[in-house]
Amino acid sequence: MKKIKIGIVGYGNLGKGVEMAIKQNPDMELTGVFTRRSPDALTLNTKDAKAYHIDDAIKMKDKVDIMILCGGSATDLPTQGPEFAKNFNIIDSFDTHANIPVHFANIDKACEENHTIGIISVGWDPGLFSINRVYAESILPVGSSYTFWGKGVSQGHSDAIRRIEGVKTAIQYTVPIGSAIESVRAHENPEFTTRQKHLRDCYVVALEGADLQKIENEIKNMPNYFSDYDTTVTFMEAEEFKAAHHQMPHGGFVMRSGKTGENEETNQMIEYSLKLESNPEFTASVLIAYARAAHRLHNEGVYGAKTVFDIAPAYLSLKTSAELRKELL
Amino acid sequence: MKKIKIGIVGYGNLGKGVEMAIKQNPDMELTGVFTRRSPDALTLNTKDAKAYHIDDAIKMKDKVDIMILCGGSATDLPTQGPEFAKNFNIIDSFDTHANIPVHFANIDKACEENHTIGIISVGWDPGLFSINRVYAESILPVGSSYTFWGKGVSQGHSDAIRRIEGVKTAIQYTVPIGSAIESVRAHENPEFTTRQKHLRDCYVVALEGADLQKIENEIKNMPNYFSDYDTTVTFMEAEEFKAAHHQMPHGGFVMRSGKTGENEETNQMIEYSLKLESNPEFTASVLIAYARAAHRLHNEGVYGAKTVFDIAPAYLSLKTSAELRKELL
Repeated sequence: MKKIKIGIVGYGNLGKGVEMAIKQNPDMELTGVFTRRSPDALTLNTKDAKAYHIDDAIKMKDKVDIMILCGGSATDLPTQGPEFAKNFNIIDSFDTHANIPVHFANIDKACEENHTIGIISVGWDPGLFSINRVYAESILPVGSSYTFWGKGVSQGHSDAIRRIEGVKTAIQYTVPIGSAIESVRAHENPEFTTRQKHLRDCYVVALEGADLQKIENEIKNMPNYFSDYDTTVTFMEAEEFKAAHHQMPHGGFVMRSGKTGENEETNQMIEYSLKLESNPEFTASVLIAYARAAHRLHNEGVYGAKTVFDIAPAYLSLKTSAELRKELL
Repeated sequence: MKKIKIGIVGYGNLGKGVEMAIKQNPDMELTGVFTRRSPDALTLNTKDAKAYHIDDAIKMKDKVDIMILCGGSATDLPTQGPEFAKNFNIIDSFDTHANIPVHFANIDKACEENHTIGIISVGWDPGLFSINRVYAESILPVGSSYTFWGKGVSQGHSDAIRRIEGVKTAIQYTVPIGSAIESVRAHENPEFTTRQKHLRDCYVVALEGADLQKIENEIKNMPNYFSDYDTTVTFMEAEEFKAAHHQMPHGGFVMRSGKTGENEETNQMIEYSLKLESNPEFTASVLIAYARAAHRLHNEGVYGAKTVFDIAPAYLSLKTSAELRKELL
């Protein structure tokens, strides 16, 4: 079997996760990692794969089937996406919800002009959670949908704490409130305030001599990030912090409480949940499955921008359609 | 908007559920119900819809967009499916797992010859559970998958009890064993015997003067149905039975415990669950969402037999792709 040749753009946690995920998929191989750093500075974990400067990617145009963009949504993906889509089939995990329509249009233009395929916003939210929202709302048109996140690390909130004066390092966990989830499960169709759905749990290492009370107040009153939530702040020593908070767990729940029947009195509940010890490794695994789909669709002559909504489940699987029907239907 | 015209073949619990589900979907209307009984004997809950004898269905060929086959998998669907697929786009909920490949081939032949589309084995298992197995295994290729059913009514097991001498009526609930589910959640990758995954909980109304001990023994030792399970049998009066056991709840769990990372030591858990107060009403709701997909695909010129694996999520939704990206991604 000819393997699907994968390129990785950006070698942070997500890029490294993709490299690991490729090894779990026998139909794929890593061709190269493309970086803005000096390629010599990268040590890959894959023999036969090479690091290249990102500006040299174009030279690999015929040697990469699918380019997986592992940069950030704020500045990397909006520019890299349309640029790479001119020459490559791409997958990205663009997750700035409000900007998805614009990003989609930009990728679509590049893909349409160059007959490439680009699957955007792949991961678990956006991604698997989004798929579950669509299935659940389509099947139970009368009902309410809920998404809860966590328990998991929010990079954005952790970064926001680290920018506070006197903070050496910090991590923030988003925690779904159990009683809120139970209320949804009980078909109470609750309408939640922001504060009622999630807690924010912060662990902070302060610089020597810093004013802890001032840091705590600044966190708890930070608009957009914390002021609308019940927030707990725990200070700890650097050593203890390192031991307890070096992982990147995440997860969450997508739920739909719906009604069916002649008088819409029958309760029906659909629930999807993830419990992830490593957010980047899991997201990378989703990206790889959609890389397989992109490769197949491209071979069928399909091009343009796509999302997870446009991809039939069978395209993700290593198995043939006949095998899927026999073994998993 | 021109509505999608639905025909229902068979007016049992599932057919009635489809009739109710149509009312929750503003892009659909019920054209007619097709029955083997005398059409005059049916009272529909939809004005403007009519009951027809099943043999007259062919006369409605141009008046029905999608025919939903609501018969049983044992004898109805294997013959009705290929027959109806000659003249109609069809949806069925064929659920005899072992015979799916043959059924698919039969439907596919009729669809290919007549340029119709037939989506088979639609519902929740097979159906939504199957989809979740494919997504989860594709994303986490290293791991173990588990399906638990219940708590819910098994018609097959209830029927088996009713056939025992001295039984007036009976119902059987399949109950997943909580500790087994917890073991999966704890990533213990258990290998279960049949007995370790589910209990069978039976409620029986005996005929007057029947030998209760004999009935109980016969149930508990019935091969295939009960002998491999821990089974409880509770006898009760007809009145009490009617009050407590007139609903058809069901549901279950699809779980995948997977590993990612360089040394495959990172635990990742995907879990999908349903808790349904009415199995037939929910199954009907799934059928209706796939009827929408079949109609769209047919309008795009797609034909042949399909399964839920072949249908992209977007096809199920009332919303446009742009709306889905903006609102649900």
